[in-house]
Amino acid sequence: MQRRQFLTGTAVAGVGATAALATPAIAQGREKLTMVTAWGRGLAGVFDAAVRFADSINAMSDGTLEIDVKAQGELVSGLPAVFDAVTSGQADMYHAADYYYVGQHPAFGFFTAVPFGMTPNELHNWYYHLGGHELHRELGEEFGLVTFLAGNTGPQAGGWFRKEINSAEDFNGLKFRMPGLGGKALGKLGASVQTLPGSEVYQALASGAIDGTEWIGPWADEKAGFQEITKIYYTSGFHEPGAGLALATNIDRWNSLSDQHKKMIEVAAGEANLWNLHQYLANNSEALTRLQAGGVKTLEFPDSVWDAFGQASAEVMEENMGDPLFKKVYDSMQDAMKKSAAWDALSSGAYARQRTRVLGG
Amino acid sequence: MQRRQFLTGTAVAGVGATAALATPAIAQGREKLTMVTAWGRGLAGVFDAAVRFADSINAMSDGTLEIDVKAQGELVSGLPAVFDAVTSGQADMYHAADYYYVGQHPAFGFFTAVPFGMTPNELHNWYYHLGGHELHRELGEEFGLVTFLAGNTGPQAGGWFRKEINSAEDFNGLKFRMPGLGGKALGKLGASVQTLPGSEVYQALASGAIDGTEWIGPWADEKAGFQEITKIYYTSGFHEPGAGLALATNIDRWNSLSDQHKKMIEVAAGEANLWNLHQYLANNSEALTRLQAGGVKTLEFPDSVWDAFGQASAEVMEENMGDPLFKKVYDSMQDAMKKSAAWDALSSGAYARQRTRVLGG
Repeated sequence: MQRRQFLTGTAVAGVGATAALATPAIAQGREKLTMVTAWGRGLAGVFDAAVRFADSINAMSDGTLEIDVKAQGELVSGLPAVFDAVTSGQADMYHAADYYYVGQHPAFGFFTAVPFGMTPNELHNWYYHLGGHELHRELGEEFGLVTFLAGNTGPQAGGWFRKEINSAEDFNGLKFRMPGLGGKALGKLGASVQTLPGSEVYQALASGAIDGTEWIGPWADEKAGFQEITKIYYTSGFHEPGAGLALATNIDRWNSLSDQHKKMIEVAAGEANLWNLHQYLANNSEALTRLQAGGVKTLEFPDSVWDAFGQASAEVMEENMGDPLFKKVYDSMQDAMKKSAAWDALSSGAYARQRTRVLGG
Repeated sequence: MQRRQFLTGTAVAGVGATAALATPAIAQGREKLTMVTAWGRGLAGVFDAAVRFADSINAMSDGTLEIDVKAQGELVSGLPAVFDAVTSGQADMYHAADYYYVGQHPAFGFFTAVPFGMTPNELHNWYYHLGGHELHRELGEEFGLVTFLAGNTGPQAGGWFRKEINSAEDFNGLKFRMPGLGGKALGKLGASVQTLPGSEVYQALASGAIDGTEWIGPWADEKAGFQEITKIYYTSGFHEPGAGLALATNIDRWNSLSDQHKKMIEVAAGEANLWNLHQYLANNSEALTRLQAGGVKTLEFPDSVWDAFGQASAEVMEENMGDPLFKKVYDSMQDAMKKSAAWDALSSGAYARQRTRVLGG
């Protein structure tokens, strides 16, 4: 939360380093990329994904390509500033959730998560094999960015509330933190929706500036400490069934890199994606047990509330269909989801049913 | 199927290249690793994973580390020869399914798939965050190997049969291709079980040398052409709910590599794992539709057969518990599966139910 720090020496050093590296003779082929992030330093999972990526690059390149990871407040502060720093060239790359940037273009939502959208498996089928990455690249290039997925939180929890939600009307007037198109859907239910960086959410909830928040899931939420503020936790959510984290590089800086370094970025981003998704999935259940043991009450939204989420989400999607690129990405995503479905039901679905039945689950 | 080719020039060249690279002055820091594989050249998915890994390394290292991928028959032939080539140092690394090597040690089964075992998500939770990779390393080192996962086929189909399976007795006397501990379980039901390389399965099924086979799933099976031989296809299987593919490097050769090259291998293996899993998942449903349109009848085993699979699988696992490393890996896997389960049900499980209900699936 050192919000003002970027006005002092750090920013200048970042820009200076980038400029110096444009002189290869001096740098002896060593390059440094300054990465700004949407994350507070050490924020569980999301910051780890950025560090995992950077560590891979630093080691694979033997230091010829150094990724210098900046947390929130270290070079820039706030979520829009992360995007602006990279499009302007103040920083070289960012690691963030692209749905923070639905104000810049609503299609950025698809590359994190959209309401009633894709699970992580569906997202990765689409991204790596059914045209998703190509569309992410196309969208990024409109803003001078070269984009990859480089992390995933897995399915996110419905969130923390000060009061139980018994009907959709309970969202009316509720001050709630939820980014992306999911947040816009909650707005349709009358919620006053905010997009705060993760590092600011605890304080906002504790102070009463917001009435509730979604963050990620049991493991990350426990580390954030929301259970100290309220004990009402909705486990399943409509808004982020599998939230991708994005890595975006300034396109001019990207074009200045060697093919070798470009490939390192691509491969390290993919590896960080896999590693990070399973970091969450591996740790959530035990964290959930600890939260429950500490008095947290886990709940599911009633069907009527899910129905309201569904209607509000459909309205939000529909409102954006006038944008040709939004519609193109939406159609591609729907098509990919259909292509995943049949085999999933016949293989994983049937297997899970039989495993539970045979082993006596 | 060029089985004899390895006795001619290729093998000598492979060994020669490895020896030459032990002289760094000549090689100017350029290294070549000969990779043998369990796969016929171009075999859909499995061979692609090996090539994806090799291409990443070749590009990231700018040729300072070259991976030379050999298909079945190009340096060695048959599945045991792949393992032996790397443990003996004839080749530097292999890409294969480690359950081909349950004869060398039954615990190798866990790093592909075991009956009633892990889905790909469960496998990766365990492998990357709950001790799985450490145990894979421990097992590999007993054979002079340094091991990584570098591919996954997703959940595998029950397989192709010449006659429908109406009871467990129908497996009695059936000549069936199924590797690993799943194959040993089918043996308990009286099947005559064979482990053939993928490149030899079509011919064995066509000639009647086997009565049936599992291979992978609709996309890879269609490319293999089994629908030309029989139209009876069981979609869900007990034996491989998510089959990992392994990369193993001769430990002396591994120790000769720079930290930079070691990290490239680790990162490229992880990226290939993610990419390959979703290659299958993205392509299976459309292939299934084509197979069905071509007259293939898709079936599920009756519950009584699943019960028999369950009992036979439990016996196979129990028979191996006397081996301390097998038991250690089994216990670790079971523990990891438990740790994945609660959150999966409350998040993905609840979400899938609501998405289907709200969107009217």
